[in-house]
Amino acid sequence: MTADVNRQWRVARYPKKEEVISPDHFDWTSEAIPEPEDGQFLVRTICLAPVPAQRGYLEKSHNSFLDNIDIGDVMRGRGVGQIVSSRHPDYAVGDIFVGSLGWQDYSIQHPRGAEFVFSTKKVKNPISPLSTELSILGQAGATAYFGLLEVGQMKAGENVLLSAAAGGVGSAAGQIARIKGAGKVVGITGSDKKCKWLVDELGYDEVINYKTENVGERIAELFPDGIDIFFDNVGGDILNEALANLAMHARIVICGFIATDYSPGPHSGPINYQFIVYKRARIEGFVVFDYWDRYEEAEQDLLGWYREGLLKNAEDEDDGLERMPESLGSLFTGGNTGVKICRVSPDPEIFIDD
Amino acid sequence: MTADVNRQWRVARYPKKEEVISPDHFDWTSEAIPEPEDGQFLVRTICLAPVPAQRGYLEKSHNSFLDNIDIGDVMRGRGVGQIVSSRHPDYAVGDIFVGSLGWQDYSIQHPRGAEFVFSTKKVKNPISPLSTELSILGQAGATAYFGLLEVGQMKAGENVLLSAAAGGVGSAAGQIARIKGAGKVVGITGSDKKCKWLVDELGYDEVINYKTENVGERIAELFPDGIDIFFDNVGGDILNEALANLAMHARIVICGFIATDYSPGPHSGPINYQFIVYKRARIEGFVVFDYWDRYEEAEQDLLGWYREGLLKNAEDEDDGLERMPESLGSLFTGGNTGVKICRVSPDPEIFIDD
Repeated sequence: MTADVNRQWRVARYPKKEEVISPDHFDWTSEAIPEPEDGQFLVRTICLAPVPAQRGYLEKSHNSFLDNIDIGDVMRGRGVGQIVSSRHPDYAVGDIFVGSLGWQDYSIQHPRGAEFVFSTKKVKNPISPLSTELSILGQAGATAYFGLLEVGQMKAGENVLLSAAAGGVGSAAGQIARIKGAGKVVGITGSDKKCKWLVDELGYDEVINYKTENVGERIAELFPDGIDIFFDNVGGDILNEALANLAMHARIVICGFIATDYSPGPHSGPINYQFIVYKRARIEGFVVFDYWDRYEEAEQDLLGWYREGLLKNAEDEDDGLERMPESLGSLFTGGNTGVKICRVSPDPEIFIDD
Repeated sequence: MTADVNRQWRVARYPKKEEVISPDHFDWTSEAIPEPEDGQFLVRTICLAPVPAQRGYLEKSHNSFLDNIDIGDVMRGRGVGQIVSSRHPDYAVGDIFVGSLGWQDYSIQHPRGAEFVFSTKKVKNPISPLSTELSILGQAGATAYFGLLEVGQMKAGENVLLSAAAGGVGSAAGQIARIKGAGKVVGITGSDKKCKWLVDELGYDEVINYKTENVGERIAELFPDGIDIFFDNVGGDILNEALANLAMHARIVICGFIATDYSPGPHSGPINYQFIVYKRARIEGFVVFDYWDRYEEAEQDLLGWYREGLLKNAEDEDDGLERMPESLGSLFTGGNTGVKICRVSPDPEIFIDD
């Protein structure tokens, strides 16, 4: 449903360190739909995708990737939408557009390069559903792609462990590992239902339920020759157990801390870092924004795999802009299976499959 | 003094986790000097160099680089010596030889490639003192060289922090950083005397005494733009403080845990590993043995710098084979300044400077 006003979530207060994000942290406001000036266009939001890094923007003095968001400002967030009026010659009404739309129904946009979070993209050949632009063809897919293949340098035959395996990035990365010929793909997640989904739907070879199983013992059992690549979204104890089970020249790709408190400051230790030496291993952190100028490489492969049916677009959709605070909060409580998408308005009919 | 018997240190019992290595862990025995067979030669030990990894050989089920040493066997250790009898056409009496001589006066040897610890080398142009073959031209120098330049990929202008800076490897690595045009070279060590030595003798720019100063505050103060390379021999709290002060794309080279308990199992945490992501940093473990086939590259540079007076051969010599257990133990209690050498017999006169 499209509103005749512009509904918005504005930041009301920053969350405390261990608080779950909820509507309490935002004000639900509305204002007139804005008008584009020369060189600008107006975009109606179709879907938004909350990502864990957004929590980092809600901290006063964080060490994250981007500036934080001031109290009173519209919450920042990437989304896909449709242009509904335009004063830019290259952007026509009806065009599908991806960019930093914010948590609102409408936003004024202009073309931008720069880094991933703020960059814009006119989608030349939109595919259905349009949310795909935010999941496997968006930040989750690109993070999985560059993290596994570029930072991790995964080779065919290598054995891969993934934490937060049913999350947005993990669900893409596990499938990509499978497509690229990994020896064994093992995912760690927090429920039997997710475990079953990873095996039945996404092609994981083995799964570990960290809530009911002994993670260290299971890793040792499943990786008798050691882990070649650990794709870590979690850190903490799971990283520690992985370190004790590395293969020679293992690579640990760290792209986030989705399951831990996202704020700076010490997280739980200790870690078995002596194995970094024994196994000549490498731990490397990365941020997908850095790969923006190489995004088309990823898109070409990801879209190809999707069209061939090799890569499933695993999405977990919430309905309505009003759900955004809970959608973001759910990422930290294991509430999503696949990429979390929040539906703000329906896909235009032309893009809806029969 | 050369013995007319072969005195030996044999392993009597493995040390407990937090025990300092001492003569209690060995038996002091002697046997007849052995005779070489065809293809072999007899080497008289001149100097031995205890290294921290040797403690790892004294653990029943370690995850170290090499097999452990059985109770009753002669303790393993690399040294420099002179051939005193030979039944190998390419190895003549009087030749200077480097290899795994063991903690004893005499050993039977044959040419060996393989990995660093066991490899052998006939020294073609010996320089005085011969212990140099075990320090800057040996394992310490090669570890510093490949760790800093190959694993760490240090570039001119980069700011470098080193832990265990006055140790065998650290004292070489700090000098190499200086030679290769590092922006700032800062060493962490455990006494004011060592701090002064690092600055006055080895050319470190700044030093931190971890026993009397707040390491985190001092690192932040000395690296306002962050650490580009942290060359770590220590781990634990110091690694944690370094992580919180990284420059973008920092590299942390881990080549040992000289100042912590060397045994496997969890060491002290927590570590600030979220900065690995924020700063797109890399932590990499390495073992110099892996670089054996490239040793000549290092030797050429190290010898050149030594001859030009740019690289000082910082050695800390103990006198007498009977001192070996304490020499090894001292590496874990901060007892050495530079590369620990244990003198077993004098350099042959021809190699002694006037």
